[in-house]
Amino acid sequence: MLLIKTNRDTLLKPLQTVTGIVERRQTLPILSNVLIEQNHENTSFLTSDLEMQIKTVVIGDLSSQQGFALTVSAKKLQDILRSLSSDTEVTLTRKSDHLQVNSGKSAFSLQILPAEDFPQVTEETESGSTITLKQKELKDLLHFVQFAVAQQDIRYYLNGLLLLVDGKQLISVGTDGHRLAYISTDLDKIQNKQEVILPRKAVYELSKLLDDSEDPVKIEYFQNKVRFSFSNIILISKVIDGKFPDYNRVIPTRNNKLFDINRLIFLHALQRVSILSNQSDKFRGVRLIVDENNLRIICKNNEQEEAEEQLEINYHDDPVDISLNITYLMDLLNNVTSESVQCAFENANNSVLMTIPGNEIFKYIVMPMRI
Amino acid sequence: MLLIKTNRDTLLKPLQTVTGIVERRQTLPILSNVLIEQNHENTSFLTSDLEMQIKTVVIGDLSSQQGFALTVSAKKLQDILRSLSSDTEVTLTRKSDHLQVNSGKSAFSLQILPAEDFPQVTEETESGSTITLKQKELKDLLHFVQFAVAQQDIRYYLNGLLLLVDGKQLISVGTDGHRLAYISTDLDKIQNKQEVILPRKAVYELSKLLDDSEDPVKIEYFQNKVRFSFSNIILISKVIDGKFPDYNRVIPTRNNKLFDINRLIFLHALQRVSILSNQSDKFRGVRLIVDENNLRIICKNNEQEEAEEQLEINYHDDPVDISLNITYLMDLLNNVTSESVQCAFENANNSVLMTIPGNEIFKYIVMPMRI
Repeated sequence: MLLIKTNRDTLLKPLQTVTGIVERRQTLPILSNVLIEQNHENTSFLTSDLEMQIKTVVIGDLSSQQGFALTVSAKKLQDILRSLSSDTEVTLTRKSDHLQVNSGKSAFSLQILPAEDFPQVTEETESGSTITLKQKELKDLLHFVQFAVAQQDIRYYLNGLLLLVDGKQLISVGTDGHRLAYISTDLDKIQNKQEVILPRKAVYELSKLLDDSEDPVKIEYFQNKVRFSFSNIILISKVIDGKFPDYNRVIPTRNNKLFDINRLIFLHALQRVSILSNQSDKFRGVRLIVDENNLRIICKNNEQEEAEEQLEINYHDDPVDISLNITYLMDLLNNVTSESVQCAFENANNSVLMTIPGNEIFKYIVMPMRI
Repeated sequence: MLLIKTNRDTLLKPLQTVTGIVERRQTLPILSNVLIEQNHENTSFLTSDLEMQIKTVVIGDLSSQQGFALTVSAKKLQDILRSLSSDTEVTLTRKSDHLQVNSGKSAFSLQILPAEDFPQVTEETESGSTITLKQKELKDLLHFVQFAVAQQDIRYYLNGLLLLVDGKQLISVGTDGHRLAYISTDLDKIQNKQEVILPRKAVYELSKLLDDSEDPVKIEYFQNKVRFSFSNIILISKVIDGKFPDYNRVIPTRNNKLFDINRLIFLHALQRVSILSNQSDKFRGVRLIVDENNLRIICKNNEQEEAEEQLEINYHDDPVDISLNITYLMDLLNNVTSESVQCAFENANNSVLMTIPGNEIFKYIVMPMRI
């Protein structure tokens, strides 16, 4: 039974949209598969890892006379399509419990598992509270904060990004307990307070799938779930059940000793001194000595080796001599694209506040460390 | 005490030549280091992993008034130099047991370990038997065979490449017991028979360091050691003590059913069918069915999935239906650059001989497998 006849790219594109969340190793074999469903109007592609589900719909193009629903290995089907030339014609045919993929003199036979066995998230009947913003706004909210989110922390609520609606603001916060990134954006109108912790995998997938465009993305909040709808894509993710730390207490307010510094010059100096830090340590310290128009950056390791850089800055305040995790500094400088950053200190015992000149909505806080 | 003052590249280049063999983790800490020795004529850089030693000599450029000898971390010094801009001036200064590296406002202090503690290979006083050939000839001898050498095989003599002088020929052979690559080159004059098994790491380093040039490389054979001298580089490697299999018995002589095939078309067809082979298996089988002007290529996996490709060939002999390790076929097609290859069969139970049309000196043999 012929199911689909189209060119390779029309089929590959929606598949690539959904395969990102499919894990190599699965406890449940069917989770390696993509659910392909077709009716006379459209064709949908859906994958899931039980925590998150992505669905994309192709309207028209692929439709055949009769509808169908089946699941086959997502990665294998993607690899097969990728291995064919770009403009080639592809047919999908069902032969009992196998899906036959043909193109020219290439033939592939993939095992089908029944569509009804695929564990789909039950669709909510009543809509939850909803906000809408531009895709590029949400993309920025995720991008500026994502790198600060904890990885496999025992405090499970840190392994996600706080997405908070507060009045007319949508706020995004990521932290691992030693550093914190914060950014906010204005909404069209005042909304009810909503607070979810979005798992890092969902953040990562969303970042990949969102455009840098003005096109809208709709966020709907349900019990324990959140749904993002944009560009023919629906991503539903469970949220992390837990209490996110109070970020307001972490953001310093008395850091009035400050200097601006060129981002890349600062980054490259840190990269150089980091050669002589303890490579194997999780927490690699760097000492910043801020003095009259001068920044000294010093790293030492257990072999009594030492690296020092000196950079000119515009600074006339009291000296500060503070130790920080060098990885946290480089993370920020690697993840923003601004020409310069601003560093603001209170003293050696309190957190550094890093911001981007001209950008009022982003804040990055790094706690000092003892070295 | 100022030791060296030069620009970054003059120092980085010889260092990069020798750092390839330095392992990340060392039982003997000093093996992480590079031995830098200077007299009034030249400066040498030397590293070792106890199995192999590389030394390169820079004449003139770096020399200072007084000589010195010291060892510092090879990777760290290399990373430091790499992190500086290309045309910058660098000074090396000794301060008691540290080497100070300075460039602009960057300062690095590296731990020195005493030169006399560095485990150098004792230089042979009497020269062994010697052959000389062009660098590109030796580079080819290694390149065409290298990929077939075994990795961490319990038969330790297979984890190296046979380099054999026989009459007027220099022969190179690599095998893992299931496939074998052979190539030879003509020498200027008849030589005494010499047979060494060169460890894969030495083969890999030599391949990297040899030029594609007509410049000479000298090979000297000593007891348990072989020395390669070329372009200011001296590489000394221990050889593997063992009996290499008799490759002559492996090379088939009755394979007269043959076809030529475009290398990339064959490779891409294999890559496509391999999507439906058992990914986790060490030995992934592919079935080749050779028939009148037609080659069918079939892969199956344990999930009853199957891929098939058909390619046109010029073939009028008896049909052959043979199973082979697909990785072995792709290894060859990935490692040569010729437009086409030739496959020659005796029958399904005997090895395939693969050659390059127009190249009489290279042979690749793959044993059949049961799938």
